[in-house]
Amino acid sequence: MSILVVGSVALDTVETPFGRADDALGGSATFFSSAASLFGPVQLVGVVGDDYPLDALSFLAERGVDLAGLEQARGESFRWSGVYSFDLNTRETLETRLGVFADFEPKIPEAFRDAEWVFLGNIDPELQLGVLDQVYQPRFVACDTMNLWIDIKRDRLLELLRRVDLLLVNDAEARQLSGDHNLARAARWIMDRGPRYLIIKKGEHGAILFTPHSTFFAPGFPLEEVFDPTGAGDAFAGGFMGHLAQCGRLDDGDLRRAVIYGSVLGSFAVERFSVERFKDLSPEEIEDRVRAFREMTVFELPVDAGV
Amino acid sequence: MSILVVGSVALDTVETPFGRADDALGGSATFFSSAASLFGPVQLVGVVGDDYPLDALSFLAERGVDLAGLEQARGESFRWSGVYSFDLNTRETLETRLGVFADFEPKIPEAFRDAEWVFLGNIDPELQLGVLDQVYQPRFVACDTMNLWIDIKRDRLLELLRRVDLLLVNDAEARQLSGDHNLARAARWIMDRGPRYLIIKKGEHGAILFTPHSTFFAPGFPLEEVFDPTGAGDAFAGGFMGHLAQCGRLDDGDLRRAVIYGSVLGSFAVERFSVERFKDLSPEEIEDRVRAFREMTVFELPVDAGV
Repeated sequence: MSILVVGSVALDTVETPFGRADDALGGSATFFSSAASLFGPVQLVGVVGDDYPLDALSFLAERGVDLAGLEQARGESFRWSGVYSFDLNTRETLETRLGVFADFEPKIPEAFRDAEWVFLGNIDPELQLGVLDQVYQPRFVACDTMNLWIDIKRDRLLELLRRVDLLLVNDAEARQLSGDHNLARAARWIMDRGPRYLIIKKGEHGAILFTPHSTFFAPGFPLEEVFDPTGAGDAFAGGFMGHLAQCGRLDDGDLRRAVIYGSVLGSFAVERFSVERFKDLSPEEIEDRVRAFREMTVFELPVDAGV
Repeated sequence: MSILVVGSVALDTVETPFGRADDALGGSATFFSSAASLFGPVQLVGVVGDDYPLDALSFLAERGVDLAGLEQARGESFRWSGVYSFDLNTRETLETRLGVFADFEPKIPEAFRDAEWVFLGNIDPELQLGVLDQVYQPRFVACDTMNLWIDIKRDRLLELLRRVDLLLVNDAEARQLSGDHNLARAARWIMDRGPRYLIIKKGEHGAILFTPHSTFFAPGFPLEEVFDPTGAGDAFAGGFMGHLAQCGRLDDGDLRRAVIYGSVLGSFAVERFSVERFKDLSPEEIEDRVRAFREMTVFELPVDAGV
């Protein structure tokens, strides 16, 4: 089944200790689609300015990303530029120019409204709610958010949480949202407010999936070369949703595997600038890394401990 | 088989957001023994002053910790006091009074010298080397260290690394020692200098075991209440070495399980002040938590990915 994604489509200028990319493809919907389309069809809703190099997105179209919901408006595209610290763990935003994204009001094409799988990229919770008003009966809705919205749109965000199945946030956001430094308690606080599932992303330390019945940890993949962390979280979401939509089930085992696929796609994202790594990423490379994750985490119980 | 541990035996005064303990049992050898003795016999070598409440260690003796190597010298015992931040992630040392520990020169009793399993707690690398000169033919030697020795005794520490099988450090120490922020590269750097195995502890984010052939991740246990983080690393080492000595093997599967036992014992350590949690910890509680770790990390490969 196809996945509907609504989010930003941007041009990123990124400087890392290893180099620099100017006006490279960026934005949450772009990273998400680049990853999720490796699993199946994607429907993208976003906005770009009349300066956007649409040709650069043709690799997505060729791979089954329906760009019918990508509006081109008069004006400048959303541009972000930032520079990463030497250890890649912190980044400084040099400039954010919202351009046409400032007036983005997602309009879901009629053909997309019966979407079963929906990912609400990190945009204003008001707009995320507006998307939910336009889709008919989604089976599974996941959303992302950020510190800004937790700060200035808390009420709308809490309203959104009551209408989504999964929230994906990083550890700092989970702590900020819940007001609790302890992640186990923060998770419970968030799940008490709506989402049946919660994923807390911890960057190089991996990700945790909380479900009503269990907790699942996926480690970070120990890459010797991390090139550009931009978009890793959205690529994670793309791998996660991509696997779920592909298998069409939401059993505990499916969700756990989806977290691993998310971790795998996130780990590939950081190996190159922008979405470059996804252009020629093969199914074999993905499956190899899934097996590597299993190899890194599997252990047998002692005989006398039973299962 | 018995495990020989050499390290500090101290009195800790600890203040956390949840309370305060004065002159409580502390020190690396104390925490290590409290955990390791739940798996089998331990031989402890350390020094205390004539003010030390030796009776308080009787629970260890009753459990098979041989205290024949615990020297009592004239003077004050090693005392440390510190206060933890509200989130327990940072601590400030208020006072360190080395007392008789300043002149500690480990003397390994004759009966301990044929130890097969040796843990060198965090003391001056010179003294750790001195211990190795006194034991005959250990089968497996693990050592801990800290930022101070990496800083001021680097050459001796590198000499020690050539003589141990396993180094246990936290992520900051691995980075400091190798001069590389990337943990995967830092691990390779360290293992190129001697130890066949390396464990990098990441506190709440878990621990990573590096072997010549594989990498294994254990998550941190998601406790809703962390009471006092003091000694968690030494309790981890105690659980790790305890399981290895108990099973008597060093296969990849044994080492992985040992990391889980280490993580389990570390997670119990932080539930109470000092070594309190180990006094009545039952084998069933340990095995239950081992199973919980497995439940938190297990996932099945998709059918088509094979193994």
